Amino acid sequence: MKGGAIFLETNARPTQATRLVIQRFDGTRMQQKKDWVATEEPMEIRLLYHTSTGMERLSVSITMRTPGHDFELAAGFLFSEGILKRHQDVETMAYCVEDAGEQRYNVVNVQLRRGLSFDPQRLARHFYTTSSCGVCGKASLEALEVQHGRALPLGTSVSARVVQALPERLQEEQPLFARTGGLHGAGLFDVEGRLLCLREDVGRHNAVDKVVGYSLLSGKRALGACVLMLSGRASFELLQKALVARIPVVAAVGAPSSLAVTLARTFNITLLGFVDHQRFNLYSGAERLSD
Amino acid sequence: MKGGAIFLETNARPTQATRLVIQRFDGTRMQQKKDWVATEEPMEIRLLYHTSTGMERLSVSITMRTPGHDFELAAGFLFSEGILKRHQDVETMAYCVEDAGEQRYNVVNVQLRRGLSFDPQRLARHFYTTSSCGVCGKASLEALEVQHGRALPLGTSVSARVVQALPERLQEEQPLFARTGGLHGAGLFDVEGRLLCLREDVGRHNAVDKVVGYSLLSGKRALGACVLMLSGRASFELLQKALVARIPVVAAVGAPSSLAVTLARTFNITLLGFVDHQRFNLYSGAERLSD
Repeated sequence: MKGGAIFLETNARPTQATRLVIQRFDGTRMQQKKDWVATEEPMEIRLLYHTSTGMERLSVSITMRTPGHDFELAAGFLFSEGILKRHQDVETMAYCVEDAGEQRYNVVNVQLRRGLSFDPQRLARHFYTTSSCGVCGKASLEALEVQHGRALPLGTSVSARVVQALPERLQEEQPLFARTGGLHGAGLFDVEGRLLCLREDVGRHNAVDKVVGYSLLSGKRALGACVLMLSGRASFELLQKALVARIPVVAAVGAPSSLAVTLARTFNITLLGFVDHQRFNLYSGAERLSD
Repeated sequence: MKGGAIFLETNARPTQATRLVIQRFDGTRMQQKKDWVATEEPMEIRLLYHTSTGMERLSVSITMRTPGHDFELAAGFLFSEGILKRHQDVETMAYCVEDAGEQRYNVVNVQLRRGLSFDPQRLARHFYTTSSCGVCGKASLEALEVQHGRALPLGTSVSARVVQALPERLQEEQPLFARTGGLHGAGLFDVEGRLLCLREDVGRHNAVDKVVGYSLLSGKRALGACVLMLSGRASFELLQKALVARIPVVAAVGAPSSLAVTLARTFNITLLGFVDHQRFNLYSGAERLSD
């Protein structure tokens, strides 16, 4: 961890997969067996920030998530929401230990550095950004443009062959999915197809937040030369997270939505869908794709 | 529509699938073609409710959804949140026409009947129910127990054979999925496997809200003898919606999460996962399953 930030993690936290006794029906008979399911637990993110009169606290999110990499999840979420810009913006991050008991690992306190301007009103506006400007996809895109500027630069290039190999690489590296069949995966690869970070979660937005949070907290690299590989579909929300993190190439095993395509075209993100070793669809940003 | 409620719908609203020019790569060459993607647009739900001093208005939700069956979506969401109990609780429902332009079909105003008690504070508490009681799965279940009572009654019985046929039936009836590959489906079936209602959406929680909203608005039937079939995974949130709607059997093509299983076991909902014509897993409520 860089930047003098203090992150307290402790042991004995909830596991990512849960073992259960279930019944399996094979078409003729029912048989009891033990099986794994993906763990799902709520997590709350609380912001602590300095004001002229002292320290304030604000609950900014409760999300259902798979435990593990919780600090990355918190950091990635706050980055996506525009509250954090770099890892030095975090003074400390820790599980809340005020409440004993089962929720011990389900509340993450993020203390912002002194001097970082944070306006709770702006946060409220941001969450409902579409409300004030009219509720439609176009207005949502305009709001993003105001906050995150225009198109992503060219310069990154990735070959079709590399992209087509990524779904298999992603699945190979999804140990929890292999065990439970119940997790979304998000993988960050370089343009040679080398895996930089992979995270799994019952919520696909969480998997992406964790990957972005990993990158932010490790302070290791900008994401300007990366490919984000998604195990499922590509929605507006996921493209929005890629935009804020300035990831130029997003590839999905599943289909994109209309607004995901519009966002990708507006900000010149390279967007591929239905990617496998035989084929893919290209929706936007052909310039970054080489043979 | 029953109960004297007035619902204004108009034509020319956004389509559920959007046609685009894309590039398809078949492993050797890129070819331009026209293709369909699932439409994704934000929708806002605004509540209008009577108070002692007049009419108040409150924005309760903005969700990304696939246009179509928007009033069902609004009704199902408000039902899941405990604001509506029956269709007569709605005085009128209409698209907001105050703002002209593109967002015309993206704001739904729901006016509650005079005399229906509605406390905005309670709504705020409900959305953050886990916050006040500690943030953990167990606390979430306890909060549900307070609101929705204990286990669902037995009495409904469905055969393994009927359940195993449902995924194929669901897919046959998903025209938008067939065209776009990008939509979640939720289907309500009776215990003989007859389809009662099917809805598709980019958000799986929306697909379930629409199905529940259909049932609520049509005033046709209680859901106590129905099976809810999900095209994807079964999360806590979806089981919660089934619980509030008192649907006793939930079957999913994909995996359940740990907290979905715990909820199903706590409230005795029959939960099946990985359902296809060859096999399934049974996680809870074996009593309702017959040969």
